[in-house]
Amino acid sequence: MSGREDASFTAQLAFVAREVEAALAALLVRAAATEVPERLAAAMRHAVLGGGKRLRPFLLIETARLLGCSEKGPLTAGCAVELLHCYSLVHDDLPAMDDDDLRRGRPTVHKAFDEATAILTGDALLTLAFELMAAVEADAEIRIELVAFLGRAAGAAGMVGGQMLDLSAEGRFGTGESPLAEKDIRRLQAMKTGALLAFAVEAGAILGRARPRERSSLRQYGEALGAAFQIADDILDVEATSGTLGKATRKDAAKGKATLVAALGLERAKLERDALARRAIEALSGFDERAGLLRAAARFTIERQA
Amino acid sequence: MSGREDASFTAQLAFVAREVEAALAALLVRAAATEVPERLAAAMRHAVLGGGKRLRPFLLIETARLLGCSEKGPLTAGCAVELLHCYSLVHDDLPAMDDDDLRRGRPTVHKAFDEATAILTGDALLTLAFELMAAVEADAEIRIELVAFLGRAAGAAGMVGGQMLDLSAEGRFGTGESPLAEKDIRRLQAMKTGALLAFAVEAGAILGRARPRERSSLRQYGEALGAAFQIADDILDVEATSGTLGKATRKDAAKGKATLVAALGLERAKLERDALARRAIEALSGFDERAGLLRAAARFTIERQA
Repeated sequence: MSGREDASFTAQLAFVAREVEAALAALLVRAAATEVPERLAAAMRHAVLGGGKRLRPFLLIETARLLGCSEKGPLTAGCAVELLHCYSLVHDDLPAMDDDDLRRGRPTVHKAFDEATAILTGDALLTLAFELMAAVEADAEIRIELVAFLGRAAGAAGMVGGQMLDLSAEGRFGTGESPLAEKDIRRLQAMKTGALLAFAVEAGAILGRARPRERSSLRQYGEALGAAFQIADDILDVEATSGTLGKATRKDAAKGKATLVAALGLERAKLERDALARRAIEALSGFDERAGLLRAAARFTIERQA
Repeated sequence: MSGREDASFTAQLAFVAREVEAALAALLVRAAATEVPERLAAAMRHAVLGGGKRLRPFLLIETARLLGCSEKGPLTAGCAVELLHCYSLVHDDLPAMDDDDLRRGRPTVHKAFDEATAILTGDALLTLAFELMAAVEADAEIRIELVAFLGRAAGAAGMVGGQMLDLSAEGRFGTGESPLAEKDIRRLQAMKTGALLAFAVEAGAILGRARPRERSSLRQYGEALGAAFQIADDILDVEATSGTLGKATRKDAAKGKATLVAALGLERAKLERDALARRAIEALSGFDERAGLLRAAARFTIERQA
């Protein structure tokens, strides 16, 4: 049963990734036909197209589908979340931030273009994410709730704040001399990675007009999944090779990044990751077999190699 | 008459600036009480508080008031536009962009803090602008229209795109060897500065539920005002001193920036600025004396010294 679900998860993830890729490509082509300067349009395409698992749109679309909403809205909202995710990668890769040259097996935007273009590309993608979310095919009340939640998840108390804590933990502002305590690392990661993954699930719940109890279960699922995903990422940074991952590896330790792998050691970090994935699956106990793909997504966080 | 209007314009601009300052301060204090990391919250306050004419909120609030809407919505929407304006200043000042050390008489964010903090501060303010716009005290339909329009005005086909063209015109991407033609400079400036100023007016029209003809007049007013304002800025860069302006002057020429002052010469640029201000005032001919403050705002673009 679980094997079959996992096979269909892989197929469905790939299917959604193609749908999202096509929708984003069409969106960026439309944008380029307007007043958008050519170099900026090219850099936006470089940042967004040709790669990525599109896990956030998948979670959003599958959550909405679980609740009976399989219209166009979830795809559009999924694209908005993906644009926001892509902006965060472009800015995180900047020389003043994580200073990465490689992303999804290709040069990062500031390497393929230049630093100013990368800053503006991130700004443009962040702005486009909100513009697109405001245009989701749904009632105005639902759209405004999506925009408001996205702002909270992506902002200073969410993703951006998490990135700030991450840089602080490297000690670069002279305030992080002692390594972060476990609970601070958890807070950092819940903000940096967890908030947007959890938002993707919650946005699906909003579009699917989840009842309060369903929404609360789905929120627990999203939060546990987000935490499992970040630990899995940190484990991959230690264990995978740059070739399979498409970006530089073993950079966390070199930079003194605050990860649970560093705090707990590799084996305990794996146990924690697995426990979180189980907790995510348990949060779905109120749903029937139609939640199979979301359950498989939780297992995927444990098993993925890239 | 016009002298009285100008005096009351100055008083009202100062009054709105205090209201906006207080509202933004309260907002940023509330934000700091949440999960926002301390250093990020401090940098956000540095970027937003303690200065600025708050011209965009003024235009938004006065336009809404002209149409009979003097509730809380315009102040909130005005704060959202101002947050967006402040983010653009933080990113524009970055070393990879215009590389400015001084803003409103104080060190820029990357000077007072550091480059990574400045990038994240801009990202956080941009995100907060949308979150706040989604929370404006108005119907969901109106809020979603505001968010969508803000996205368009601020994005790749608006403000961010204009900044990209501005950098291209410096020749830094090897594509701007010949100086821009006048019409390209106008396009650049309409996007870089005009779009957000025009949005401020249009947002006031949306909140004031302007009828189509009123809205069209107000759009013309906003566009002419935005263009006049940018030329006035370029003239000030040549004529003012760093002390009165609170930022470095004569940087445009040194950098080979594409300005109408460079293209037309100082005297013709002043004539153009004045003609645009008159056009802005003419666009308001369908409104009675209640549009006096907006007319005075157009004259202010000509007369301001900072």
